[in-house]
Amino acid sequence: MNTAATPLLDRVAGPADLKAMSNSELAALAQELRQEVVSIVSQTGGHLGSSLGVIELTVALHAVFTAPFDKLIWDVGHQCYPHKVLTGRRARMHTLRQEGGVSGFCKRAESDYDPFGAGHSSTSISAALGFATARDLGQPTGDAIAVIGDGSISAGMAYEAMNNAGHAGRRLFVILNDNEMSIAPPVGAMSRYLSRLYSETPLGRLKDIAEDFESVLPGPIREGARRARQLVTGFPGGGTLFEELGFDYIGPVNGHDMNQLLQVLRAARARASGPVLIHCCTVKGKGYRPAETAADKYHGVGKFDVVSGTQQKAKANAPSYTSVFGAALCEEAARDPRVVAITAAMPAGTGVDLMQKRFPARVFDVGIAEQHAVTFAAGLAAGGTKPFCAIYSTFLQRGYDQIVHDVALQKLPVRFAIDRAGLVGADGATHAGTFDLSYLCNLPDFVVMAPGDEAELKHMVATAAGYDEGPIAFRYPRGEGMGVDLPERGQVLEIGKGRVVREGSTLALLSLGDALASSLVAAEALEARGISVTVADARFARPFDTNLVARLMSNHAALVTVEHGSEGGFGAKVLHWLARSGWLDRGIPVRTMTLPDRFIHQASPARMYVDAGMSADDIAATALNALGVASGKFGARG
Amino acid sequence: MNTAATPLLDRVAGPADLKAMSNSELAALAQELRQEVVSIVSQTGGHLGSSLGVIELTVALHAVFTAPFDKLIWDVGHQCYPHKVLTGRRARMHTLRQEGGVSGFCKRAESDYDPFGAGHSSTSISAALGFATARDLGQPTGDAIAVIGDGSISAGMAYEAMNNAGHAGRRLFVILNDNEMSIAPPVGAMSRYLSRLYSETPLGRLKDIAEDFESVLPGPIREGARRARQLVTGFPGGGTLFEELGFDYIGPVNGHDMNQLLQVLRAARARASGPVLIHCCTVKGKGYRPAETAADKYHGVGKFDVVSGTQQKAKANAPSYTSVFGAALCEEAARDPRVVAITAAMPAGTGVDLMQKRFPARVFDVGIAEQHAVTFAAGLAAGGTKPFCAIYSTFLQRGYDQIVHDVALQKLPVRFAIDRAGLVGADGATHAGTFDLSYLCNLPDFVVMAPGDEAELKHMVATAAGYDEGPIAFRYPRGEGMGVDLPERGQVLEIGKGRVVREGSTLALLSLGDALASSLVAAEALEARGISVTVADARFARPFDTNLVARLMSNHAALVTVEHGSEGGFGAKVLHWLARSGWLDRGIPVRTMTLPDRFIHQASPARMYVDAGMSADDIAATALNALGVASGKFGARG
Repeated sequence: MNTAATPLLDRVAGPADLKAMSNSELAALAQELRQEVVSIVSQTGGHLGSSLGVIELTVALHAVFTAPFDKLIWDVGHQCYPHKVLTGRRARMHTLRQEGGVSGFCKRAESDYDPFGAGHSSTSISAALGFATARDLGQPTGDAIAVIGDGSISAGMAYEAMNNAGHAGRRLFVILNDNEMSIAPPVGAMSRYLSRLYSETPLGRLKDIAEDFESVLPGPIREGARRARQLVTGFPGGGTLFEELGFDYIGPVNGHDMNQLLQVLRAARARASGPVLIHCCTVKGKGYRPAETAADKYHGVGKFDVVSGTQQKAKANAPSYTSVFGAALCEEAARDPRVVAITAAMPAGTGVDLMQKRFPARVFDVGIAEQHAVTFAAGLAAGGTKPFCAIYSTFLQRGYDQIVHDVALQKLPVRFAIDRAGLVGADGATHAGTFDLSYLCNLPDFVVMAPGDEAELKHMVATAAGYDEGPIAFRYPRGEGMGVDLPERGQVLEIGKGRVVREGSTLALLSLGDALASSLVAAEALEARGISVTVADARFARPFDTNLVARLMSNHAALVTVEHGSEGGFGAKVLHWLARSGWLDRGIPVRTMTLPDRFIHQASPARMYVDAGMSADDIAATALNALGVASGKFGARG
Repeated sequence: MNTAATPLLDRVAGPADLKAMSNSELAALAQELRQEVVSIVSQTGGHLGSSLGVIELTVALHAVFTAPFDKLIWDVGHQCYPHKVLTGRRARMHTLRQEGGVSGFCKRAESDYDPFGAGHSSTSISAALGFATARDLGQPTGDAIAVIGDGSISAGMAYEAMNNAGHAGRRLFVILNDNEMSIAPPVGAMSRYLSRLYSETPLGRLKDIAEDFESVLPGPIREGARRARQLVTGFPGGGTLFEELGFDYIGPVNGHDMNQLLQVLRAARARASGPVLIHCCTVKGKGYRPAETAADKYHGVGKFDVVSGTQQKAKANAPSYTSVFGAALCEEAARDPRVVAITAAMPAGTGVDLMQKRFPARVFDVGIAEQHAVTFAAGLAAGGTKPFCAIYSTFLQRGYDQIVHDVALQKLPVRFAIDRAGLVGADGATHAGTFDLSYLCNLPDFVVMAPGDEAELKHMVATAAGYDEGPIAFRYPRGEGMGVDLPERGQVLEIGKGRVVREGSTLALLSLGDALASSLVAAEALEARGISVTVADARFARPFDTNLVARLMSNHAALVTVEHGSEGGFGAKVLHWLARSGWLDRGIPVRTMTLPDRFIHQASPARMYVDAGMSADDIAATALNALGVASGKFGARG
């Protein structure tokens, strides 16, 4: 696959092989590793930029520490490709992010070299502190090293972990991978000088020396040092936040200078007695020009041509749900100045960037801070505006308590735009939007909607904009819509009212959200077998349309609900109601199709739904089972 | 009720009446307010210490700001009693925390003077920023003031909010109510001097002046100033964290010196253009000796005698679930050195304090930091120890994403000890453990248990200690156990196996956890009507005992599940399975009794369950309905 020669990399069966290499060999190895990663991702697609930024760091960490005895924990994990190449997974990297292949994140089940998996941000310091604590209690484990980006470290959870780690005082390494700063030359020079100084000095005295050092520098360079400090902390002036939290601070270190990295890491490893933060400056996309020059630094890419950097774009058949939401939100914002939007560091991913461009004063990017995002939105609602809080299903889990305590309990009209609901494909289980229906549908006063297609999404944005009585959410999948015509303007839907999409007489399929498509396909298949099928689109998971359900139960031999979410959500609400209202006593067969009680591994979304037993074929089979076709009971009524 | 004369307080119908008072009148009013609060809480019980600590602050805030146009947001809210007395609720304060009475927290539904309710910590800055933002977008609202304690401000969520507020730069007031520091006299003197200086100076220059001021002080006093600084930030050395985050910092201010408070607040109100943090030092329990001298500063008290401070203690009939857990955990810890425990700032509340005393190195209090607590526990599990993560049901909501992403997805054996499950009484809806079953039971690989009595709890602690295959949780209620004999040692229960508590033939009641007691009472009542009742204790909500359920369905005319949790939990799991396995096709009546789809207001737990429709009478009535007694179908099979 990789046509370039990689003589050093070819000698690496595992990280142990790095121990015997010289500094310059390790630097050369890094270059080969960079070529290899570019080559791999050009074939598979993936998170290229962040992996390229940590090439040298990965090599240096594996040369200095001894994984898997030492625990190397990559925050989020999308920068782990070079780590995977060095830890015995090189030959399988062509399967990256594919069905049955190597995960795009660290994963405990995949390798001993992945001691703690991730996908969501800001968990690494907590986990590393857990390992370090276990070690100090006598468990056979070595050093714990968390590698965390400058975005991730800004989340409250990372702060909680540092606060605790600084207090605990255990030996622990946090590598701050800072790739937002573009280091100007004087700072870069400074950093090299400082880091050599650091690495030659007992760690306990590093801080003092750094301060002394600053004060004897001539003016402009001192200014440079201060700027470095500022860049380090993200705050103007003062000591580093990390030192205030009880960490020894080393840095900034040039994360692409192998000698410097090795020197610092070796010194830190030899001398640390408590928590140490090593501030490492890297460039996202480093060493691959198309990545370095791209606005998003090739954060997530499809397959591409290595020489030109041109990415293969799959041809879209319909606009994405995300873009339909973004446009519809923008239209609502144009109509009503009270409409505001909140995103947690994902303006483009959520489609909120469109509104951000047109109405910048009314879009709030709060950073990776979902807890704050939700309660901030609640405050905005209490203050009289109309907040749309746009957070992916899987990340909204971080704001669950705030949803319960600040939004639902106070019945505040926060609109939740929940993208990436259901199975999401290559990112796998960590990013699946599996649980939103179960964690939202059981909250009093919540309205939960799910669109059957992109036109419905537009209606739901309008419905949410017009709804002031309490919290309202709509959840929709990743990827393209169904290709239906979009209405000029979204209609306000009647709360709690479903719709019948096709009329039949024997079997009733009641689908929620994008399960509509496979339900319609299943209906066709069943019709072909002579079974007359009604397909209804619930639209509302909560409050759901009890009249519609009663009608379906009255007029059909069996009812099957279909939703792209776990148990405990829409289908459970229907079952509870059927039980409570005595419908179940009649013995009309009911089935609730949900995602199964296990995590679904990465594949295309369609293949993941097949794995999950939720394909159109599965729906048809479940319907036949409900109708008792297998047991000869077809058409029987209880 | 209050026998002392309160001439000034008697003149206060609302905060507007404070505007005309002089500083010395306001100081005198504060004294009357303090007496009044002591008198009220001596009759009702409640959170006394924190309210006494903010008496002067409450008066000063209402004298300077103009609620409800200005939004005064009390973090957590348990310090709001003086605020309630001043805002038109004095006459109703004797109903505090009682059924139909005044809430022990701020509550939007209760008063316009409570713009944002709470109960959980660290939400106030996010909410205040929401109000301030809405105001800046043209909504008719005034200043936003968050009052937050030093414990609450340490949570990640508060950090996220400050990070965002400092960046946004809007006018916003955060009052840090710091009641952990016992200010030594020099610092107190310093603080008065500093605060006068501050209040006479344009805010923009405060920081510089404070620094200048420090540098010209003589040695020992300078040291005092530095100490004040340190106490302020909680960190050694450096500028304040708040300034680094973009806030103007004022303080420390003596929170019991009315003149100082008024001066600082008036100056801040007059001059602030961006976010301002006012650091206010207070003494928990201030002014009431029994509270000031108590170890917990009378944090939460029952009724008490004002003169002696002696609290009325209800006589216990049985040990509390909390204490049984604490003792059982301690025994497991004594047996296995790998057992460790994590608490988020609640060692006593969770009963973990017992183990903390015996094995201090193996108990980790991480502060108010549930997100970190859960992932730290996951790291501890991955590192080979046996973590028990002890967090109340309602607060565990804060760690939900970490439960999904770090624990469940990685199948790590973290043991969750979930106290305060179900309805909790006087603390009301914000503290109810309503949703844990729905948010845990739908996670793959989770084992979820609930003990029917305190002996069962002991078995479940043993079961959790011995279970290494994945996450396991047990949830139990607030308050006393059933008074059953405790076994010498907990037995390891078979995973997923329920037990039959009484055998009958017509109706099957399948209860989960402490719903067992009311189920047994209901069974007696039904037997008295000639209906033979089986009562089974599910023990496991997940995986639940499908054999047991199948047996109950086979041998009985109807099945009723009973659980103290919302829809979407145990009953939903049973229904999904019954649907999937075709049992529902037989028309055997099934009912799932859960907490209803609304929030239940404060009362005694027993009364709350009556309100919720989950009393023994309700269970019996539901059973009769299922059996079709009302419609003459008794005993019929579908």
